[in-house]
Amino acid sequence: MLVIALEPFFEKLADVSGQAILPFFRINQVVSNKTGDKGFDPVTQADRAAEMAIRQEIRKAFPDHAIHGEEYGVENAGAPYEWIIDPIDGTRGFICGLPTWGTLVGLMKDSHPIYGMMNQPYVGERFIGDGEKAILIRNGQSRALKTRRCERLADAYIATTSPRIITGDHGEAYDRLEAQCKLARYGTDCYAYALLAAGQIDIVCETGLQAYDIAPLIPIIEGAGGIVSTWSGDSAVRGGAILASGNATLHEAALRILSGG
Amino acid sequence: MLVIALEPFFEKLADVSGQAILPFFRINQVVSNKTGDKGFDPVTQADRAAEMAIRQEIRKAFPDHAIHGEEYGVENAGAPYEWIIDPIDGTRGFICGLPTWGTLVGLMKDSHPIYGMMNQPYVGERFIGDGEKAILIRNGQSRALKTRRCERLADAYIATTSPRIITGDHGEAYDRLEAQCKLARYGTDCYAYALLAAGQIDIVCETGLQAYDIAPLIPIIEGAGGIVSTWSGDSAVRGGAILASGNATLHEAALRILSGG
Repeated sequence: MLVIALEPFFEKLADVSGQAILPFFRINQVVSNKTGDKGFDPVTQADRAAEMAIRQEIRKAFPDHAIHGEEYGVENAGAPYEWIIDPIDGTRGFICGLPTWGTLVGLMKDSHPIYGMMNQPYVGERFIGDGEKAILIRNGQSRALKTRRCERLADAYIATTSPRIITGDHGEAYDRLEAQCKLARYGTDCYAYALLAAGQIDIVCETGLQAYDIAPLIPIIEGAGGIVSTWSGDSAVRGGAILASGNATLHEAALRILSGG
Repeated sequence: MLVIALEPFFEKLADVSGQAILPFFRINQVVSNKTGDKGFDPVTQADRAAEMAIRQEIRKAFPDHAIHGEEYGVENAGAPYEWIIDPIDGTRGFICGLPTWGTLVGLMKDSHPIYGMMNQPYVGERFIGDGEKAILIRNGQSRALKTRRCERLADAYIATTSPRIITGDHGEAYDRLEAQCKLARYGTDCYAYALLAAGQIDIVCETGLQAYDIAPLIPIIEGAGGIVSTWSGDSAVRGGAILASGNATLHEAALRILSGG
């Protein structure tokens, strides 16, 4: 059982990670390449400092919990409670100085996400959800998030980080879906899922996500009334090809297009 | 001759347009379609309210100046001083709730841009330039902007709003250029030019820009040490296919790739 009320603890994690990241934002930081010769997968001191700060708080408050972060791997593997951390989702946007990245922290119980946060410290926005409700906190004020009642693809705004990283059969399926929608927006990373919860975007469609890219967002999306699954309709918890929609009708219509129907 | 110091006047324009726009941001605003059946070119009450507010201030302070805005056309045509307004550059991002749009206001003298601003009121950022210097004002603090000394395409970060709206020969040329760069980022609208001035992005490459999409940004880009021209190396003032780079060496290298060299 959790002995600390979760919202203030997530706010604490938002504070410490924001403080760790912002000194590195919009300066000419050192950018390392995690994939070496195989491509460009940037990681910065800010990613590492933020994950370290978050891990420290979790270890202090919940020494028995598992922690799984993008930069520093897994500790206490197998514990029933597991924290999932992506210190900067959207590192490419981050190193370009755009304010569209976010810090993702999720809490899983028995592999099921029960609480999640997307924190954007430069804009000053905290999207938090527990699967039953979702809120946006800004300037100390909190408002409930609700997805939009858009049920037709022809009215839908779709977002993806880059259509060019969705390749092969996946690429063709994504293109079919985008072509059915009213408007497409790129370069969005985790922000798109938060804005889907906020009722601004109707569909987010991506491939190649890791668990830490999506698990922390699930309680926010579902808490606002949205649906998120893999492209084949299975649980999104482990990542992969992911589709999020504002409601079930739209989700089913999008899944049909993705599966070629 | 201008009788009012320009920076405070631009700050006033940022204040009134921000106040006009923010009540419409992240609510389910009415979105009209300017192109009717021919596509989807959204315009909102926020665009119109912001341009109206800016026009009012300009008329009061400079009754003899020409004003050319995206939503309400031209007044006092032919006057030596002309104000260029794009009340919301990035309306698509705006209606999706993303914080990447901006209000553009430029002042031209004899068709030459002498002062420009990109204002992002939700993030609270004002990028201002006069062709000789450029600054970013945030939280009442001002810092000088300077482009990055990145001279090789292989090290460059490139941004464009959407590679899919760059079609035909232009599309092939853009793709060649993007393939030479280290990282590409989409969904950027006017923010990319401001971040080029801030030394975060090295190249911005787009097509189909109107004068009001680019003229207000020229004094910011050039004030920070950058270069901006059409793809054929001519003045960017009237829009079209536009290339902006952090320095002349990189600009020449990019122009060569775009022209097939």
